[in-house]
Amino acid sequence: MSPQASTSIRGPPTRFAVALYPGFQALDVFGPLDILNMLSKIRPLSLQVLSATLDPVLTQTSSSGHSTGQSVVPTRTYADSVDDTEVLLVPGGFGSRDPANVAPVVEYVRAAYPRLRYLLTVCTGSAVVATSGVLDGRRATSNKIAWEWATAQGPRVNWVRQARWVTDGNIWTSSGVSAGIDMMYAFVADQYGEDIAQTLADRAEYIRNTDPDFDPFAEKAENRAAK
Amino acid sequence: MSPQASTSIRGPPTRFAVALYPGFQALDVFGPLDILNMLSKIRPLSLQVLSATLDPVLTQTSSSGHSTGQSVVPTRTYADSVDDTEVLLVPGGFGSRDPANVAPVVEYVRAAYPRLRYLLTVCTGSAVVATSGVLDGRRATSNKIAWEWATAQGPRVNWVRQARWVTDGNIWTSSGVSAGIDMMYAFVADQYGEDIAQTLADRAEYIRNTDPDFDPFAEKAENRAAK
Repeated sequence: MSPQASTSIRGPPTRFAVALYPGFQALDVFGPLDILNMLSKIRPLSLQVLSATLDPVLTQTSSSGHSTGQSVVPTRTYADSVDDTEVLLVPGGFGSRDPANVAPVVEYVRAAYPRLRYLLTVCTGSAVVATSGVLDGRRATSNKIAWEWATAQGPRVNWVRQARWVTDGNIWTSSGVSAGIDMMYAFVADQYGEDIAQTLADRAEYIRNTDPDFDPFAEKAENRAAK
Repeated sequence: MSPQASTSIRGPPTRFAVALYPGFQALDVFGPLDILNMLSKIRPLSLQVLSATLDPVLTQTSSSGHSTGQSVVPTRTYADSVDDTEVLLVPGGFGSRDPANVAPVVEYVRAAYPRLRYLLTVCTGSAVVATSGVLDGRRATSNKIAWEWATAQGPRVNWVRQARWVTDGNIWTSSGVSAGIDMMYAFVADQYGEDIAQTLADRAEYIRNTDPDFDPFAEKAENRAAK
């Protein structure tokens, strides 16, 4: 049974989780999550924040040496015996560059993917997920400025450069940072209906990009690299 | 000396703070803050998260009854003896509707405003700030769906309905939720230069709205109210 067919029988997913690690990009997480925060006011949802431990997770890695950044409190660990997550969101961020830093996420994604209904990534979150192997043979996209590094993490992935977001089966991957917002509105439209997605976008006074192929940043990054 | 004149002498502000309260809207905070997170990688910045106590602050109020939402850890209290904040950002959110809930923010804004170089608000954050009186006689905007309530919080404010954001002296106010992102890019452009603002937007793969008067949501909300 395909995920699409299962949706019509089981209804849209209601149990979402985001996979944090030190040095995650804040907007990768809160762009999509705040859409779900608003959706949760009209549909009951569970939104879990996962991490290796229950300690607050900083948007920067300790090695960055800045005194800035924000800390978010997890609600569950990756090892929690309860894992009823239907939709997992994996963000990107500078912390994704360190294999040891994201090892708990990679391990969790590898173990949890068979139980998930959908796996979503933002920015270099697709590089993290690619490391787990679950993107092998799939079409996927990533951040355009980190493109060379990100795509090298998944040599058997069919990387799509020109894309705001890409869907392949039950995996949705988006381009850099703010692309996750457009992807999540598209996901909500797909699962809950276009009317609900547009109502939430209007409440957030957000002008959606509804075309997954629209991506001026693919070319911009190329021009920058050529200089 | 006007804030504009002082900027040219003192350089752009480097000490930012966001004023949290239970039930703040996540994107109101992390849309603008993540721009500053990126700016902090090329310019040293201090980004403080303020709250009444150092306990984590939830995006929902306890009365909402949902088990969803995200918690953010403050770095300073409103009563902290150190307050070197140059730019204060006040977000909106459902928690802004309860006067007791936002009383510590209102009191802090009233006391801190004379020391600030800039005061920025997102969404119904302008209603919170209006309550403190510092918007009296100023032009300001707010969320379009919450317009009637928000504007009633500041009867002596010159409310501007059709606006993505409004500047009046050293106060910048933006419309609903995602408008805070466009306002912060405009603020960074104004303070740090257009090149830096556009570089950060490209890194976030974000298409800016650079016209403060562009606001399709003013009309949309009117049409909805008329139905």
